[in-house]
Amino acid sequence: MSQSIRVYGPASVSNVTCGFDVLGFAIEKPGDIILAELSEKPGARIKKIIGCDTLPINPLENVASVAAQSLLDHVDPTIGIDLTIYKNIKPGSGIGSSASSAVAATFAVNQLIGVPIKNTFDLVPFAMQGEQIASGAFHADNVAPALLGGFIIVRSNDPLDVIQLGTPPDLYAVVIHPDVQIKTSESRKLLPVLVPLKDVVTQTGNLAGLVAGLLQHDYDLIGRSMHDIIIEPAREGTIPGFKELKKAALDAGALGAGISGSGPSVFALCKGETSAQKVLDEMKSAYGNFNINYDAYISAINKKGTIEILD
Amino acid sequence: MSQSIRVYGPASVSNVTCGFDVLGFAIEKPGDIILAELSEKPGARIKKIIGCDTLPINPLENVASVAAQSLLDHVDPTIGIDLTIYKNIKPGSGIGSSASSAVAATFAVNQLIGVPIKNTFDLVPFAMQGEQIASGAFHADNVAPALLGGFIIVRSNDPLDVIQLGTPPDLYAVVIHPDVQIKTSESRKLLPVLVPLKDVVTQTGNLAGLVAGLLQHDYDLIGRSMHDIIIEPAREGTIPGFKELKKAALDAGALGAGISGSGPSVFALCKGETSAQKVLDEMKSAYGNFNINYDAYISAINKKGTIEILD
Repeated sequence: MSQSIRVYGPASVSNVTCGFDVLGFAIEKPGDIILAELSEKPGARIKKIIGCDTLPINPLENVASVAAQSLLDHVDPTIGIDLTIYKNIKPGSGIGSSASSAVAATFAVNQLIGVPIKNTFDLVPFAMQGEQIASGAFHADNVAPALLGGFIIVRSNDPLDVIQLGTPPDLYAVVIHPDVQIKTSESRKLLPVLVPLKDVVTQTGNLAGLVAGLLQHDYDLIGRSMHDIIIEPAREGTIPGFKELKKAALDAGALGAGISGSGPSVFALCKGETSAQKVLDEMKSAYGNFNINYDAYISAINKKGTIEILD
Repeated sequence: MSQSIRVYGPASVSNVTCGFDVLGFAIEKPGDIILAELSEKPGARIKKIIGCDTLPINPLENVASVAAQSLLDHVDPTIGIDLTIYKNIKPGSGIGSSASSAVAATFAVNQLIGVPIKNTFDLVPFAMQGEQIASGAFHADNVAPALLGGFIIVRSNDPLDVIQLGTPPDLYAVVIHPDVQIKTSESRKLLPVLVPLKDVVTQTGNLAGLVAGLLQHDYDLIGRSMHDIIIEPAREGTIPGFKELKKAALDAGALGAGISGSGPSVFALCKGETSAQKVLDEMKSAYGNFNINYDAYISAINKKGTIEILD
């Protein structure tokens, strides 16, 4: 049995337009890296966090150690694990920063202790234990795509029912992360409590179309379906320049665009890398008028999810 | 060019559990038959209605002639058509009675006048014109499955966007039509105006799962997803014995069950004909305690939609 392992957990986009709390996907980059090392002292600990000085070292408060500990508690609490986190996704970015660390830690520990959980699907609940520390909610909509790759439906969080959709082969994602702070808990307060039934019908029609488009690899249908008339109108005001970013993406040929998670990141889906590059350029150009720093990412939809890094 | 044609338009189930106003499918039987005959007098007329004495003969009020006329208006208003309707689906049954006549008339006229509309998809709006006379709403959720077969998503009625999902090969439907009257317009009044967001999330998770299950031919997922927590609770009280019928279906192994359209018909989906027969038997047995006449239907999901009857 190896004494250590390095694992990559990708970023992910949840709340994909009409799929609030239900539909998410993983992207190829950025992603956190976890180095997990066996230790003689029982329990999961955080040895070091590199790339971020605001996250807790306390193992009861860090998503990675909480996720790792929940797996150890299930398999063998006498095992000891030291975790080093190479943090590449900024906390609070809206692209599954905590989920990335949680899935990487869970996957790493499972590999390191001899793969007691044979099916990666079954690691989702352990990673969710970690994610819950950060978001306050027991949600699989970032964790499941980050762990499994591709598009994921969370049909239900309790009991957990996660469905893999894969991805159309030519689908690319562009993400702009404006350097502004939005707390998920604050953003939740903006959500409507009640929704008009006619809006539910519109939203469900679009979600059904989006799921069908993803499974039928119908890019045009994906684009026609990417509308969110319930959540986006309530939240878009929290993201400076959201309307301009979305318009730039659509004008440049994106299939659709929306808020990633609860923001502030904004994502677009595109058919083909050339289109995605053009969309990225136009979104960056549109954001040039705003006096806000941002990070920009472009990648194919991540098909592999969380993976061991082999030297 | 032939002088006459006979066409079969099948019954259909709309509002498939969590897919209110969005998801429908066609069944193999029952279905209306339309005999369309060329006439020298311009316009579409009703020559005779066989099997029902409550439907209007006035061509401006009958769904079949209105649908036929809308197609003639589009193609060539100088053409004359006489329609004879063999009415096998009881009006107000909740299994797309008016849609059946509307699609059969539209398809018949298109065939009879030399197929000016090449793609059957493009006949949907004409059939909807007829359906609108009966239901008061411009909805494709019965018309599109009856015309095209299989499961259909109506992503949007305006602009019309209809998506064919096909059907898992082993999927069967059981329908019980209790002989009670429910008007669609009355049933609409029972619907909630506002829906709690948390219920929207539950419903959309299930609908996403149902669409994925249908496309991935995952019968178990179809069953897990067939829940309607928004519409069914509001309407089930209008159908005597609904709870008993649904329980009997599920106890007998149905994947799921719900209200067909706005009722009073109750449908169940089953994997395999043997299971469907058992479900049918148990639903009939459960309804034996109610002093209500009913019709019962069992069939595979209709894959062909509306078809010409060849002698």
